[in-house]
Amino acid sequence: MSTLNVLEILNIFGLFVFAISGALRALRQDMDFFGVALLAFVTGVGGGTIRDVLLGFFPVWWIENISAVFICLAGAIVATLAQSVLDSRIKALIWADALGLSAFAILGAQSALGAGAHPVIAIFMGAVTATFGGVVRDVLLNEPPLILKQDIYATAAMLGAAAYIGLLELGLAAAAAAPLAALITFAIRGASILFNIPSPKFGHPPRQ
Amino acid sequence: MSTLNVLEILNIFGLFVFAISGALRALRQDMDFFGVALLAFVTGVGGGTIRDVLLGFFPVWWIENISAVFICLAGAIVATLAQSVLDSRIKALIWADALGLSAFAILGAQSALGAGAHPVIAIFMGAVTATFGGVVRDVLLNEPPLILKQDIYATAAMLGAAAYIGLLELGLAAAAAAPLAALITFAIRGASILFNIPSPKFGHPPRQ
Amino acid sequence: MSTLNVLEILNIFGLFVFAISGALRALRQDMDFFGVALLAFVTGVGGGTIRDVLLGFFPVWWIENISAVFICLAGAIVATLAQSVLDSRIKALIWADALGLSAFAILGAQSALGAGAHPVIAIFMGAVTATFGGVVRDVLLNEPPLILKQDIYATAAMLGAAAYIGLLELGLAAAAAAPLAALITFAIRGASILFNIPSPKFGHPPRQ
Repeated sequence: MSTLNVLEILNIFGLFVFAISGALRALRQDMDFFGVALLAFVTGVGGGTIRDVLLGFFPVWWIENISAVFICLAGAIVATLAQSVLDSRIKALIWADALGLSAFAILGAQSALGAGAHPVIAIFMGAVTATFGGVVRDVLLNEPPLILKQDIYATAAMLGAAAYIGLLELGLAAAAAAPLAALITFAIRGASILFNIPSPKFGHPPRQ
Repeated sequence: MSTLNVLEILNIFGLFVFAISGALRALRQDMDFFGVALLAFVTGVGGGTIRDVLLGFFPVWWIENISAVFICLAGAIVATLAQSVLDSRIKALIWADALGLSAFAILGAQSALGAGAHPVIAIFMGAVTATFGGVVRDVLLNEPPLILKQDIYATAAMLGAAAYIGLLELGLAAAAAAPLAALITFAIRGASILFNIPSPKFGHPPRQ
Repeated sequence: MSTLNVLEILNIFGLFVFAISGALRALRQDMDFFGVALLAFVTGVGGGTIRDVLLGFFPVWWIENISAVFICLAGAIVATLAQSVLDSRIKALIWADALGLSAFAILGAQSALGAGAHPVIAIFMGAVTATFGGVVRDVLLNEPPLILKQDIYATAAMLGAAAYIGLLELGLAAAAAAPLAALITFAIRGASILFNIPSPKFGHPPRQ
C-alpha cells in the first residue's frame, strides 16, 4: 500500500484512457479494426516508447509488459463498442486524460533520472512520455499535432516533472514526491481546463 | 535447397517490390531522385527497422546487409525508368506486394520469437515488419496511412504470423512452418484482393 | 586549434541555425511556446538522433550533451523575439543553413565510419544527419518534407560525405579531409542557391 502504487494505478488508467482517445480518433477517420487497435496502442505506449529509445532502454518497456498491449486492446474494444456514448462524454474524457498525463509525466521523469540523465533531460522526458503518444497518433492520422497548439498540456507535464525534481532536491523521498508532483501536474492541467487558460504564444502567423 | 531459402528469396523479392511501390508514389509527388530513392528505401526496410529498434537489435538489420540498400536503389531506378509501364500494371504490383507481405510477416514474427518475445508481441511484430514500411512511406508523403483503412492487409500479416506460431506449437519445424505460414498469409491476402473483401470496420464517422 | 575545431564550431552554429528554422516554421503555424521549442529542438538534433538510433549509439548524443538542448532553446527564443526581422532575412538564413548542412553531413559520415559502417552507409548517414531534422520538422508540422522536392540539398550532403570518404581513401588525415569535404559540401549547396539549380527529377506526376 505504498504511495507509489497510486502512480502505478494511475499509469494503467492513463494507458487505458490514452488508448480510448486514440481509438476514437481512428474510428472517426473510418479506419478498420487493425487501424483502430494500432492507434489505441501507439497513443497509449508511444510516449514511453520514444523515451526508452532515446535513453537506450531495450527492448522498449511494453515488449516485456504484455499487459500494456491488452490494456490498449481493451481501450480499442471499449471505444469501438461505446463510440457514441464516449463521443458525448468528451468533458469526462478530458479529465480522465489529465490523470493519465499526470502519471506519465512523473513516471517519465523518474525513468530518465534512473538512467542518470541531467534534470533538464528528465523534465523533457516527462513531457515526451506524457505527450508523444498523442503526437505519434496525430502524425499517423495525418493531422497537425494538437498538443503543440492547444492549451496548457505539455507545459503542465513539464512543470509537474520539474516539481518532482524540486521536491526530491528538497529532500522528499521519491515515494512522497511522486504522488505529490502528479497532483501538482493534475492541478495545473485542471486549472487550464476549468479556466480555459491558453498556452503562451508569441508568433505572428501570416495574415490569411 | 532448404525450404527456408524460399522465404529468403521472397524476402529479397518483397524488398524490391516494396521499394518500387515507394518510388512510384514519390515520383507521382514530383520528388527529386534523392526523395525517390529515400522513399524506395524506407518502404522496403522501414518495417524491419522499426521492429529492430523496438526489440533492441542494433545496429538495425540493413546496416550490415548492404545488399538491402542496393536492392532498394535498384527498385528506385526501375520505377523511375519504367514509371508509365508500371503505372499501367498496378494489378500485377498488388499481387507482387502480397508475396512481399507474406515473407515479411513470417520473418518479422520469427525475429521477435528469436528475441524471446511473447507470442502476442511476435504476431504484432509480424504485422509491423510487413506494414510499417508503407506507414512510414505515407507519413513522409504527408498522406493518411492507407493500410490502416483499406482491405485485409495488416490483418493478413497478423493472421499469417499467428498461423506460424500455431504451426510451431503443433510441433512443426520452423523450416516447414515458415513457408506454410507464408502461403497462408498469401492466401488470405489473395482472397481479399480477388473477392475485394473489406476490412472489418465499426466506426461511425461524422456525417459530411 | 586543430582544423577539426572548425567543424565543431560549425556544428554548434548549424544546431543554432536549424533550431531557428524549426522555430520560425512553428511560429508561422501559431504553435505555443512548447511547440516552438520542440520544433526548434527536433530540427536541430533530429538528424543526429535518427543516425544514432540506426547505428545503435545509446543514449542518443544530446542526452549527455546537455548544451545541445540549450543551444536549441536559445534558437527558439531568438526566433520568437526576432521573428519579423528573421522572416525578412530569409536569404541570409539559407546561407547559414548551408553551413550547418555542411558540418552535419561530414560529422554524420564520420560517426558512421567510426561505427565500422560500409562507406555507402556512411554517405547515407551523412545525408540523414544533415537532413532528417528537417524531415521530422515537416512531419510534425503536417507538411510534405520540402527537402525531398526542392533544389540540391540532400544531394549536396551525400556528395560532401562521399568526398570525405574519397579524401580519406586518398590518404588524407581526417583532420584535413573533414574541413575540406565540408567546404566541398558548402560549395555544391552554395552553387545550387546562387544558380538556382534544380534537383534531378524524372517523374511524370499526374496531370491536374
